[in-house]
Amino acid sequence: MSIDRLQELIIKKENPTVAGLDPRPDYIPPQLIEKHKKEGRGLISALASAYLDFNMGLIDALYDIVPAVKPQSACYEQLGWEGVRALGETIKYAKAKGLYVICDAKRGDIGSTAEAYSEAYFGTIKDGENEEEPFGCDALTINAYLGSDGVSPFLKTCRERDKAIFALVKTSNPSSAELQDLVIDGRRLYQHVGELIESLAGDTVGRYGYSCAGAVVGATWPGELEMLRARLKKTFFLVPGYGAQGGTAADVGYAFDERGYGAVVNSSRGIICAWQKTGNEGRDFGEAARAEAIKMCGELRAHINFGR
Amino acid sequence: MSIDRLQELIIKKENPTVAGLDPRPDYIPPQLIEKHKKEGRGLISALASAYLDFNMGLIDALYDIVPAVKPQSACYEQLGWEGVRALGETIKYAKAKGLYVICDAKRGDIGSTAEAYSEAYFGTIKDGENEEEPFGCDALTINAYLGSDGVSPFLKTCRERDKAIFALVKTSNPSSAELQDLVIDGRRLYQHVGELIESLAGDTVGRYGYSCAGAVVGATWPGELEMLRARLKKTFFLVPGYGAQGGTAADVGYAFDERGYGAVVNSSRGIICAWQKTGNEGRDFGEAARAEAIKMCGELRAHINFGR
Repeated sequence: MSIDRLQELIIKKENPTVAGLDPRPDYIPPQLIEKHKKEGRGLISALASAYLDFNMGLIDALYDIVPAVKPQSACYEQLGWEGVRALGETIKYAKAKGLYVICDAKRGDIGSTAEAYSEAYFGTIKDGENEEEPFGCDALTINAYLGSDGVSPFLKTCRERDKAIFALVKTSNPSSAELQDLVIDGRRLYQHVGELIESLAGDTVGRYGYSCAGAVVGATWPGELEMLRARLKKTFFLVPGYGAQGGTAADVGYAFDERGYGAVVNSSRGIICAWQKTGNEGRDFGEAARAEAIKMCGELRAHINFGR
Repeated sequence: MSIDRLQELIIKKENPTVAGLDPRPDYIPPQLIEKHKKEGRGLISALASAYLDFNMGLIDALYDIVPAVKPQSACYEQLGWEGVRALGETIKYAKAKGLYVICDAKRGDIGSTAEAYSEAYFGTIKDGENEEEPFGCDALTINAYLGSDGVSPFLKTCRERDKAIFALVKTSNPSSAELQDLVIDGRRLYQHVGELIESLAGDTVGRYGYSCAGAVVGATWPGELEMLRARLKKTFFLVPGYGAQGGTAADVGYAFDERGYGAVVNSSRGIICAWQKTGNEGRDFGEAARAEAIKMCGELRAHINFGR
């Protein structure tokens, strides 16, 4: 079961970190871009190839110590279809290296359109005997504002194809309070969303007690993390906001259950931009990322047992 | 100003219809797919080319009578990067024909990630003297659940590049009530979202009185449409749910202001699948779509003056 696989990888690697693969032009060592520009290609095309090179180097440097990667779709869409092709190839490469892949696309729509997103990220297109996966992720982030019509089509595919979703519940940004913290019948909107998610997938619980429908809860809200962990007992948490956004290892500790299960913590810039601090113009971007991931894992281990 | 251009096109064509370009394998006349499969290509690649052929044929048949098209991103993502390339080429073709293009992608994220989406759909990548547009839409649908941090980066680009967004406020699906209708301080969540959108963009009002931040409000909720039209005086409405989902011309009438301005009504399947009712195996898909669009326009004109 999909979330079981993620939990098992966390236990095996003794590391609840997901590395965010969020490339931007200024996050990429310049020589990777120059290499492709020298081939006479346009900037978009050269950047897309450089993103893939960068990701493959990061994955090579990280795959034995982190359980999962989370490419941020926006970064790839910024390069149009060539960026989206690099996203697809990144997912394929990460999966071949045994990593669990969460595509952070925050998709949300209803009925047949939600089915189309679900088929895009989880499904296959059949051509006679052949099947092709457009993206082939293990998990996808979704936005549940449209209600259960917008969640159920994803859950149907999760059940059929052994996949998982992470619905936005309480996001890490300062203005998440504007809508998510509004109080309805004594409970905040994000609690209503969390309870909706938990109730829709409660029948899919795996061997660690978690269902195929997880929740995104920001590291920047430790009080909310603690409260949600206590109430949403079947919901695995994807926790952004560690490091650059201000979340600490002590903060994210609240995301884990008493066994140290039930959460994965994202770091993007901290890991993938570590090369910018070494003064080697990015020739060591893989080693720098690895060193940073090991450091982060140590910080987390000091506060959380995460299933060890 | 972007929304002014849309309103002007509606007035000029005496038609407040946006044609939803939401291709699916079974919406495409089979011979369009066969043509590309005969070239020896895989199904995904053949479908992507067939989607583009279909869209170009629809645009040729519709561009002088409808003001806008709305491609649904999910349908293209379902074919991976090749589908996304067809989306980009569809947008380019529609714009060259003078149509206003709303990309229905319901994107939503925060800070620099929202900026990346905004750059993807509205921006350009500069390469020395050259600028390439990854998608180059006129407008994009967004999801505001993350709060103003998730909306402001889009609005910044709308101001700089003369673009528009449509935020999900009250969606057309039955379960939209589960979260969107929750009551907070005597007002429903969708009203809070609508008011947030209106307040964030109030300074961008154009010559027709509407700002660069519109709202998606479903035709299936005429009472809510009427109430929101009365309260959100600067917010242009994108109205899905006409036809197949049950919304009638009388229902959508509430989306328009007393001058007949301020809204555009989507129809997807009704128009693009009209060929399935003619018995010609889709050889006349363009003519069938045109006839259906003219019929729909007649129905709307019977109830609304939309600026005529």
